[in-house]
Amino acid sequence: MPNDAARPFRYPVPDLAELPDDIREKILAVQEKAGFVPNVFLLLARRPAEFRAFVAYHDALMEKREGLTIAEREMIVVAVSAAHSCQYCVVAHGAILRVRAKDPFIADLVATNYRKAGLPPRHRAMLDYALKVGTQSHLVGDADHAALAEAGFTEDEAWDIGAIAAFFSMSNRLANATDLRPNREFHGLGR
Amino acid sequence: MPNDAARPFRYPVPDLAELPDDIREKILAVQEKAGFVPNVFLLLARRPAEFRAFVAYHDALMEKREGLTIAEREMIVVAVSAAHSCQYCVVAHGAILRVRAKDPFIADLVATNYRKAGLPPRHRAMLDYALKVGTQSHLVGDADHAALAEAGFTEDEAWDIGAIAAFFSMSNRLANATDLRPNREFHGLGR
Amino acid sequence: MPNDAARPFRYPVPDLAELPDDIREKILAVQEKAGFVPNVFLLLARRPAEFRAFVAYHDALMEKREGLTIAEREMIVVAVSAAHSCQYCVVAHGAILRVRAKDPFIADLVATNYRKAGLPPRHRAMLDYALKVGTQSHLVGDADHAALAEAGFTEDEAWDIGAIAAFFSMSNRLANATDLRPNREFHGLGR
Amino acid sequence: MPNDAARPFRYPVPDLAELPDDIREKILAVQEKAGFVPNVFLLLARRPAEFRAFVAYHDALMEKREGLTIAEREMIVVAVSAAHSCQYCVVAHGAILRVRAKDPFIADLVATNYRKAGLPPRHRAMLDYALKVGTQSHLVGDADHAALAEAGFTEDEAWDIGAIAAFFSMSNRLANATDLRPNREFHGLGR
Amino acid sequence: MPNDAARPFRYPVPDLAELPDDIREKILAVQEKAGFVPNVFLLLARRPAEFRAFVAYHDALMEKREGLTIAEREMIVVAVSAAHSCQYCVVAHGAILRVRAKDPFIADLVATNYRKAGLPPRHRAMLDYALKVGTQSHLVGDADHAALAEAGFTEDEAWDIGAIAAFFSMSNRLANATDLRPNREFHGLGR
Amino acid sequence: MPNDAARPFRYPVPDLAELPDDIREKILAVQEKAGFVPNVFLLLARRPAEFRAFVAYHDALMEKREGLTIAEREMIVVAVSAAHSCQYCVVAHGAILRVRAKDPFIADLVATNYRKAGLPPRHRAMLDYALKVGTQSHLVGDADHAALAEAGFTEDEAWDIGAIAAFFSMSNRLANATDLRPNREFHGLGR
Repeated sequence: MPNDAARPFRYPVPDLAELPDDIREKILAVQEKAGFVPNVFLLLARRPAEFRAFVAYHDALMEKREGLTIAEREMIVVAVSAAHSCQYCVVAHGAILRVRAKDPFIADLVATNYRKAGLPPRHRAMLDYALKVGTQSHLVGDADHAALAEAGFTEDEAWDIGAIAAFFSMSNRLANATDLRPNREFHGLGR
Repeated sequence: MPNDAARPFRYPVPDLAELPDDIREKILAVQEKAGFVPNVFLLLARRPAEFRAFVAYHDALMEKREGLTIAEREMIVVAVSAAHSCQYCVVAHGAILRVRAKDPFIADLVATNYRKAGLPPRHRAMLDYALKVGTQSHLVGDADHAALAEAGFTEDEAWDIGAIAAFFSMSNRLANATDLRPNREFHGLGR
Repeated sequence: MPNDAARPFRYPVPDLAELPDDIREKILAVQEKAGFVPNVFLLLARRPAEFRAFVAYHDALMEKREGLTIAEREMIVVAVSAAHSCQYCVVAHGAILRVRAKDPFIADLVATNYRKAGLPPRHRAMLDYALKVGTQSHLVGDADHAALAEAGFTEDEAWDIGAIAAFFSMSNRLANATDLRPNREFHGLGR
Repeated sequence: MPNDAARPFRYPVPDLAELPDDIREKILAVQEKAGFVPNVFLLLARRPAEFRAFVAYHDALMEKREGLTIAEREMIVVAVSAAHSCQYCVVAHGAILRVRAKDPFIADLVATNYRKAGLPPRHRAMLDYALKVGTQSHLVGDADHAALAEAGFTEDEAWDIGAIAAFFSMSNRLANATDLRPNREFHGLGR
Repeated sequence: MPNDAARPFRYPVPDLAELPDDIREKILAVQEKAGFVPNVFLLLARRPAEFRAFVAYHDALMEKREGLTIAEREMIVVAVSAAHSCQYCVVAHGAILRVRAKDPFIADLVATNYRKAGLPPRHRAMLDYALKVGTQSHLVGDADHAALAEAGFTEDEAWDIGAIAAFFSMSNRLANATDLRPNREFHGLGR
Repeated sequence: MPNDAARPFRYPVPDLAELPDDIREKILAVQEKAGFVPNVFLLLARRPAEFRAFVAYHDALMEKREGLTIAEREMIVVAVSAAHSCQYCVVAHGAILRVRAKDPFIADLVATNYRKAGLPPRHRAMLDYALKVGTQSHLVGDADHAALAEAGFTEDEAWDIGAIAAFFSMSNRLANATDLRPNREFHGLGR
């Protein structure tokens, strides 16, 4: 297998020293917390304004502490990213999902086929909606929102599910277009 | 036809007076420039952090003045949004495309079938790549980037095309999930 | 943009003077009424027998004055043609729809996503059936006909909806196979 | 199996005596020649103007004696109709193809998978184009026409292939929308 | 048409004399019963271990005399094989279906569109399930099994329907990957 | 998460004591080697004849020691099973692939998107062919076999790739139709 550390994406790896201070500091902070720099940060650093907007958007959706749990948010990311065959997002967020859900099995099950993962009805409804937004959003309508409501989701939670599915539909495409490879560290996390 | 001004999207329309200052000011600035408030701003105002990140991301990709022209950027938006059947984005950015390209016909042609719009090879290559990122990003590979290079696009322009396609893949899903309707003012602009 | 008047389709433009009398007279009559010759007439004139059958079939379905309104018939054409990415039919019949419905907005909304066009239930049911005939006719069955009946359509109106969807499925393919371009005059009509 | 003679399509079978003279005579003429009345004639008789236009269009494309052979024309019909899962057209025109080609095997092979029917390159190219017009006409372009030319087809023959594919794309939808069943007599013809 | 007897598949035809005794004897036994050697036996003879496993698996599913009738089993094969455009399986098992069902019409109807074959509700439910297993097995769930139960199928019959659909999904792929052609003798059997 | 050990598939778990001797012995042998009984053996034990044929077929394709390596064979299984969203096969054979390839990362990469797994050209060609057999076998033709030959595969290796893809297309459907869940032991193997 090629060494993905040597070529983690299609574009040149930026030199940390030449990055704007806030970008470099964010990267170093993540490195300190995770023990490594997730490749997506190095990729986006090529474009500081896009880096900042991406991180701000991501954090607004993924680090919110009301409504959906953190593990539920990651479950949406894994299911949508699998539907888009996004290697980076499935592997990286699969790791985060295992950690957040304290469940070493769930990421593989959701990534392969969430419909057969033995999920409770609430999560099945959540992922049915997320996948419809992710892959057939032009067909989303009242019946889909009613199904969410019936499963106990509020209007604000419905927004979150849809917005996370939409945000990672973008993120999956960025990763796929740039051949972003997952760091090897992600594979074993939380198992 | 129902009055879309009365219910421009699935969620309640926010009261401008209750919005954070920066959000309200942005909205008023857009209104002053355009003569009306595009519905997407009212939709996103429900979520100030997401509003700010969305606008920052959008502007980083769409208001850049190097590489792709402004009209080319809008052409990508219209083609990708049509592939996702996003009514708001096709109508609103179709209007902007007509204005930017000073061409009253181009938006309808690109929205319906960019392959039969009589576009020069450069734009055909640009949209072939954008649509592949938008609808089959898992298949994007070296051959697609080589085709862009052959059509004269730099690596940075390739990033822009892919990033715009990815960003509007998100935006299309947000609009579709929330039933965002286009303002009537857009339909006639630039004709 | 290339001048579509100079090359409106893949085949040579016929010389009016050399056409059979009935074809030339039909074309001149249309020109007098519309102010220009829609390109589809020039295309089909290459084949007089096909021209006559096409026009006769079209008129039998589209100029009927019982059952569906004229605007409803055009709405079906626009929705089906958009599903087949037929530029000529979407632009030309979009213009006719705006005129017939006296609604400058409806054609853009139906062409992009009729499901999110705020249509009344009758029209939603009509277009659901038309699109199923247009894109998945092998799955049409009793349930689809029951849905039409429930929306108030008679058996004869059901025939019309299906037949218009079928006829334009042909027309869309003829236009796409011959690269038929819409006349520029259509874009602004009825706005 | 239900008796398809008793209910050959979704609409009532018309009484021959009540049909316009030209329609009745056409039906009787076909009956005399074939030994039975193909159900499509009874179906369309409900709508005399559509009947006449359909037959005129069909004959202009299918009974032409220049360019494509009669068997080639029927081969296109069978391949396109199979792609649309149209039972009536596959069975009825499969019979005609066997007779016209004097080949008892060809219809089954083309209907199931023309790519694996051992066809000569000319017919493979012809059906590749016909199927693209039949199922993805929005993607038809210069390369497809060049492939036809390379296989020896003239511009007029290219038109015929595309027009037959388009006409039967309509016919397949009419048959599917009305549940038109093939007459039993067709199954054994030409075997 | 090429002589399919001369090149019935992509690989060389094995010499019967060089085959293991049990394989040769099986082939000769089939030949004696059918009057010819179905090409699939000659193809698989290249791989004796696979030949034996294939035949054992096939017979376990197709020659069982409890639950589904023999004709029902063949109906499943024809419908699934048509969905996979497998020429050999549609033609060969179409022949067997005609013989088993003592119905000269059923194979053509099921192969083209089982939904419009006038089948009784039991067979419609059986084929709906078989096709879902054959083409979208990741979506099969409780509702599909409930529909089978409602149509009167036991759990063991449900297994059989699914297993036959799965086995021929394999068989169809083997035939398609090796360009396996049907023997001409199959076309006319049971008509 | 539900306890998958308690309900590893849709059908009742058989009592080992009541199984035919050869089936029970095979299961005990696997258990001794692996340390647990993979659920697929318990599922198939319901049907002894199918169990024997399945295992014989599997072993003929997967335990062969000529041509493709064992790891290559498992790579095909993982890629094809991911395309069919088969949870059991992706998780179980992903584990075997990690062990056989002595690579803790490869299974996740191949399962998510083999095209972006940094594979050498030989493996890319192998999986391109396997996936085409797995998902579009009706389109497989000379060009696909030529691509395999160019990548250095013999005719017998081409057969193996296709046969493994076909066999697991069956296996994936059996697992999906019966809701077969992977044993938890597989998730951590070889990491």
